[in-house]
Amino acid sequence: MKLRELGEDRLLAQLLPHLPPGRSVFAGAGDDCALVENPVGRNFLVLKTDCVVEGVHFLSQANALDVGWKAMMRPLSDFAATSAVPQFALITLIVSKETKNDWVKKIYRGLSRAAARFRVDIVGGETSGTRGPAVISVSVAGFVERGRCVLRSGGKIGDDLFVSGRLGGANRRRHLRFVPRIEESRWLTKNFALHAMIDLSDGLGADLPRLARASKVGFKIDKKNLPLNRAATIDNAISDGEDYELLFAISPRDSDRLQMRWRRKFPKLLLTKIGHFNRRSKIENRKLPGGYVHFK
Amino acid sequence: MKLRELGEDRLLAQLLPHLPPGRSVFAGAGDDCALVENPVGRNFLVLKTDCVVEGVHFLSQANALDVGWKAMMRPLSDFAATSAVPQFALITLIVSKETKNDWVKKIYRGLSRAAARFRVDIVGGETSGTRGPAVISVSVAGFVERGRCVLRSGGKIGDDLFVSGRLGGANRRRHLRFVPRIEESRWLTKNFALHAMIDLSDGLGADLPRLARASKVGFKIDKKNLPLNRAATIDNAISDGEDYELLFAISPRDSDRLQMRWRRKFPKLLLTKIGHFNRRSKIENRKLPGGYVHFK
Repeated sequence: MKLRELGEDRLLAQLLPHLPPGRSVFAGAGDDCALVENPVGRNFLVLKTDCVVEGVHFLSQANALDVGWKAMMRPLSDFAATSAVPQFALITLIVSKETKNDWVKKIYRGLSRAAARFRVDIVGGETSGTRGPAVISVSVAGFVERGRCVLRSGGKIGDDLFVSGRLGGANRRRHLRFVPRIEESRWLTKNFALHAMIDLSDGLGADLPRLARASKVGFKIDKKNLPLNRAATIDNAISDGEDYELLFAISPRDSDRLQMRWRRKFPKLLLTKIGHFNRRSKIENRKLPGGYVHFK
Repeated sequence: MKLRELGEDRLLAQLLPHLPPGRSVFAGAGDDCALVENPVGRNFLVLKTDCVVEGVHFLSQANALDVGWKAMMRPLSDFAATSAVPQFALITLIVSKETKNDWVKKIYRGLSRAAARFRVDIVGGETSGTRGPAVISVSVAGFVERGRCVLRSGGKIGDDLFVSGRLGGANRRRHLRFVPRIEESRWLTKNFALHAMIDLSDGLGADLPRLARASKVGFKIDKKNLPLNRAATIDNAISDGEDYELLFAISPRDSDRLQMRWRRKFPKLLLTKIGHFNRRSKIENRKLPGGYVHFK
């Protein structure tokens, strides 16, 4: 059945009751707004929105389950970068009326699975027609303890730079199946004082300069030591993007203890010291060309 | 200048620093997530997202200032329907790389003006390219006191039904310039016990049945008494949509006092008793054909 024959109310009714409201959800999908229990304590409320666009972030023939998964995981990766705990998600789905209902259901299943992976409640949905490519936009709210949030701007000269996992070559499907490093990030801020962090969505070549700029420092990395995915080159690692790994800065005094404890806690996931922050210099900041930049 | 020549970082840098962070914003646009002070007290966190799509919610030649205004005011109208206070907004802007930078700036100016009208802080932005029509998606977070939130589901048999303002004919530009009834809604719940409420976005013919269904009641309205906008017919009032007026249910015991106090408080804004909730009957529920339904 196509959406044109189904109508918005029936579409939402069909999709949303299957999303079980968590205990902290007072009124979820189906009312004008979502009402949820306020996260208690001296926490920050954390908000993030992101979208995937057909033809830009996924191809029309991509598996709809994967597309829904990716649409949810992208903003969750920003929660990882902040060391925040995601709790509630709102979905906006913009599709043509010729879209098959089955495709939409699979998108929602992908979204739901990804949300469930991190115990996030989908508390609202909005749909709209379009004559263009499909868009899935996901907004997430959650919290972070005041003592544990990590911004981009806290990096200091001399900080060591670490990257989780491996980089490059994500466009061969991996970008649709990634798991944001929330667990790793929460463990890091529970045990270490991170100075600055970002998730690598546009590639090291774009995101490392961003992190350095926000921290008002320069950087130096050892390209030959970058942790590469199989069949990926150094250029891939710098320019491909969509790795969704963590890049963070930490005092060199903590580096050894971090590496030792990380190996014990996450034996299957690489952690690599790729360089350090240094005094700001224009030359250093220009040493990493590449990285995916929208509109270019 | 076209966006293709500008790039995403420069676009965001150009747009976002002009949005002054409120006192309760710890980290706003420019970091991975927005971090804001948690609204204190025994409140619910309120979340809503909505979007406008070129060719669906606005025409390509529409004034970009108006389009930005509308994109922000639509989710704020849902806050009015819940009697909630909006505080923080996230913007997702999806446009083709051929879009003029000037158009985007005007969109943001419209968004900012609308946000400022209700003291909402824009705390984050996301942009993406597309090959299709432009999309502006706005997510809003805020709060509502536990004793004052109004759902769709609280209506009772015998409740009087009231509508603010006038209905019909919004497609002649008014839909781009409306002011959500947040002030009126907050006044209502401060002074009266509303049973159920909804904002009229898809037209009385679609939204009244929704309100009744959520409350598990039927309804009867006096079509001849509907408050009409100039040049609007009864059919327009039922089917046009985009009125963004409040429709709410209240005990008939409170009706007289409500009407008297409303006239004093909002002398320029009509409040009309349009009917009442009754026992659920399929016939009554089918008496209002029309109303805008997406995908149809």
